[in-house]
Amino acid sequence: MDTDRSNDSRGPTPELRIDAERFQKDFEELAAIGATRDSGVDRPALSEPHLEARKWFLAKAKQVGLEARIDAAGNHIAIARTGPEPQPRSLLLGSHLDSVPQGGRYDGALGVSAGLEVLRVITEENIALPFDVELYDFTDEEGRFVGLMGSQALAGLLTRDQLQTPGQDLGIFHEALDRSGMDVSRILEAARDPGSLAGYLELHIEQGLRLVEAEADLGIVTSIVGIRSFRLHFIGRADHAGTTPLDKRFDAGLGAAAFNLAAHQHVGRNHPGCVVTVGNMEFSPGAFNVVPKGVDVALEFRAETEEELDALESEILSLAAEQAQVFSLALEIDRLERAASVVMDPGFQKAAAHAGGALGLKSLPLSSGAGHDAQSLAQACPAGMIFIPSQGGFSHSARESSEWTHCVNGANALLHTVLALAEDADREKREIR
Amino acid sequence: MDTDRSNDSRGPTPELRIDAERFQKDFEELAAIGATRDSGVDRPALSEPHLEARKWFLAKAKQVGLEARIDAAGNHIAIARTGPEPQPRSLLLGSHLDSVPQGGRYDGALGVSAGLEVLRVITEENIALPFDVELYDFTDEEGRFVGLMGSQALAGLLTRDQLQTPGQDLGIFHEALDRSGMDVSRILEAARDPGSLAGYLELHIEQGLRLVEAEADLGIVTSIVGIRSFRLHFIGRADHAGTTPLDKRFDAGLGAAAFNLAAHQHVGRNHPGCVVTVGNMEFSPGAFNVVPKGVDVALEFRAETEEELDALESEILSLAAEQAQVFSLALEIDRLERAASVVMDPGFQKAAAHAGGALGLKSLPLSSGAGHDAQSLAQACPAGMIFIPSQGGFSHSARESSEWTHCVNGANALLHTVLALAEDADREKREIR
Repeated sequence: MDTDRSNDSRGPTPELRIDAERFQKDFEELAAIGATRDSGVDRPALSEPHLEARKWFLAKAKQVGLEARIDAAGNHIAIARTGPEPQPRSLLLGSHLDSVPQGGRYDGALGVSAGLEVLRVITEENIALPFDVELYDFTDEEGRFVGLMGSQALAGLLTRDQLQTPGQDLGIFHEALDRSGMDVSRILEAARDPGSLAGYLELHIEQGLRLVEAEADLGIVTSIVGIRSFRLHFIGRADHAGTTPLDKRFDAGLGAAAFNLAAHQHVGRNHPGCVVTVGNMEFSPGAFNVVPKGVDVALEFRAETEEELDALESEILSLAAEQAQVFSLALEIDRLERAASVVMDPGFQKAAAHAGGALGLKSLPLSSGAGHDAQSLAQACPAGMIFIPSQGGFSHSARESSEWTHCVNGANALLHTVLALAEDADREKREIR
Repeated sequence: MDTDRSNDSRGPTPELRIDAERFQKDFEELAAIGATRDSGVDRPALSEPHLEARKWFLAKAKQVGLEARIDAAGNHIAIARTGPEPQPRSLLLGSHLDSVPQGGRYDGALGVSAGLEVLRVITEENIALPFDVELYDFTDEEGRFVGLMGSQALAGLLTRDQLQTPGQDLGIFHEALDRSGMDVSRILEAARDPGSLAGYLELHIEQGLRLVEAEADLGIVTSIVGIRSFRLHFIGRADHAGTTPLDKRFDAGLGAAAFNLAAHQHVGRNHPGCVVTVGNMEFSPGAFNVVPKGVDVALEFRAETEEELDALESEILSLAAEQAQVFSLALEIDRLERAASVVMDPGFQKAAAHAGGALGLKSLPLSSGAGHDAQSLAQACPAGMIFIPSQGGFSHSARESSEWTHCVNGANALLHTVLALAEDADREKREIR
């Protein structure tokens, strides 16, 4: 460890563990905010329950003696100072408190509550580290408006264009920002100097079955898939559903339906391992007795390389144009999210594997099919992710769950990865000297 | 004419015409309520603009000296008393002031405003008739909640079941009823004794191209198609759109899409002249990154005979079950509207054709592919409908329109059909004596 630490601070502590009971209390308090009847949570970004969860987080951070602040992108931040003065660099921990509509209680909230416990242990135990440790609750990870908005802003990736084409009506987006005390013209100011970042580390539930199937305790993430999303507008003509013969209609619903089927068939056949999803369609005017004039289609697809993403994009958008033509419809395309496929830092993977080993846990290297804030951060600093097993593999659903033991293991792994990264940083510093 | 008429009332008046200017002023005042930027109207049943239009109607009726009342089904009624005492029977005129979302300004409103002008002329001219004349603005013709609700209630056809399964969330329905001062437990009380009804007559825009193509001024409706509507719930499973492989999904959107295409293909091939429409789909949870768990499909189909409606129902619902199975989904079916196919009264058709002839207008007998309140009334009393030409045939759209001359012709035809029916009734009475 760094020999510059203040006199009463502790050195390496392999026996150190997080307080499982206290962690569980926090986790459950969070799960109660925006709770649904089926034990999930409904906390879409910047909704009332989401804002309440974020308020809970900052209040809790202050209560346990951490610094707390909110940046221009609405990211909520708790800071553990590890030396007598603020350090030039910070190791960031993070995840998010928003959920998909009717989502699960682990996705995002686990990483934030475990991070809070880790910062609390570091502060309580007065552990000297070669960096400060900051915990981020990132804004809109799930992309209600702009996917990974908070982490993209921090990493300097967010563009004004993205803020002009949110995944919802621009008016609703601005209203939500207002309600949250955010100023859209200042969001890009949340970008941080990469030189101030020692790295980024995130704990998350796997959202798949590989850890359960391998009977592993921890996943050491090697890479994260790239995601691109679009809103397609199929545009036909509103007509009376009783007096307009079938062959005289321009039914936007038929073009959207044919596209949905064609896109799934194409990706399933030609791009094994990739996924495409039409998560929503909005019909207008949307009445029983009116031929649909317009259908807005929420489309996303994912792949592990930029090359495959490019191929998917060109092929899927061609299918949309093709089906629009078959049904004599117009087609307009809004480009929305574009999260690059990234690899996790090898040093961070090693540190996490080392932490798992020291805790007697079985770990498994795996790639992530889900997008994460780590994807943004990996483009600004070394980044790593640790997964815990996901019972049944359910995700983005109230049925998402994990055994509490796995959550505790994950939080301890997060703590010891921070300590391992600190040792690495100290070693590096000594070697440079 | 009846010889019992009061001394200062007028007899037959073949030269009588409605006041075109006054009629136009009313029509335009109505079109301004809930007006959309593209010259249509947006007055879904029981919405604020719809309630405002109804308020306008009752105020106007009172202002021109008519009696006015609201019945238990929310129908707004203006009454022209044609003798010194209320008569035992009334001839009803009617249509509706609600519109489909983003609809046109003629559909429904033409019939009400022309009816108002006819009652005004009858009152002003003090015309003695063998029946009172009542003008109905029926509740929810377009079926935002329960299609033809007001006219079905009046005709004694509405059931408690229908009120339990509205086309929208039950809570929203009850809230709308409350806001409108209606009591759901009393709606069925709007049923009238058929013995008190001399008949029902409705003026409406054609909503098709047959009159334009035949260069006719008036359509004399011979029959109205039957309509059945359903809400289909395709139910799959919400899963993470990144971590759930395509072949492990239960995507409700795919089943709904395949059903939509299959239903159109089937009806187009096997039921010429019939129509099927999927006017809306609602996805849940409806996010980009969640495989859709559920899709609610708004389905309706129409045919000219009950036999064909039965065949369509069984075949289309089988297709839904088939596609649900193909995509491993559950399927639940709510039966909604059921408007019988009906024929218009031959005597009423003859009276309307006679009125058209006397006005020097060319009329054409035709069937109606659109549903109308006359469909309910035809099951309680003799009923007839008069159509005017529809420019371009557009309907349920802001692009709906008709030349003003046609509207005036229609209103005059309505007036003279009332007079012709009065003569028929008088003749009948004399013959019985």
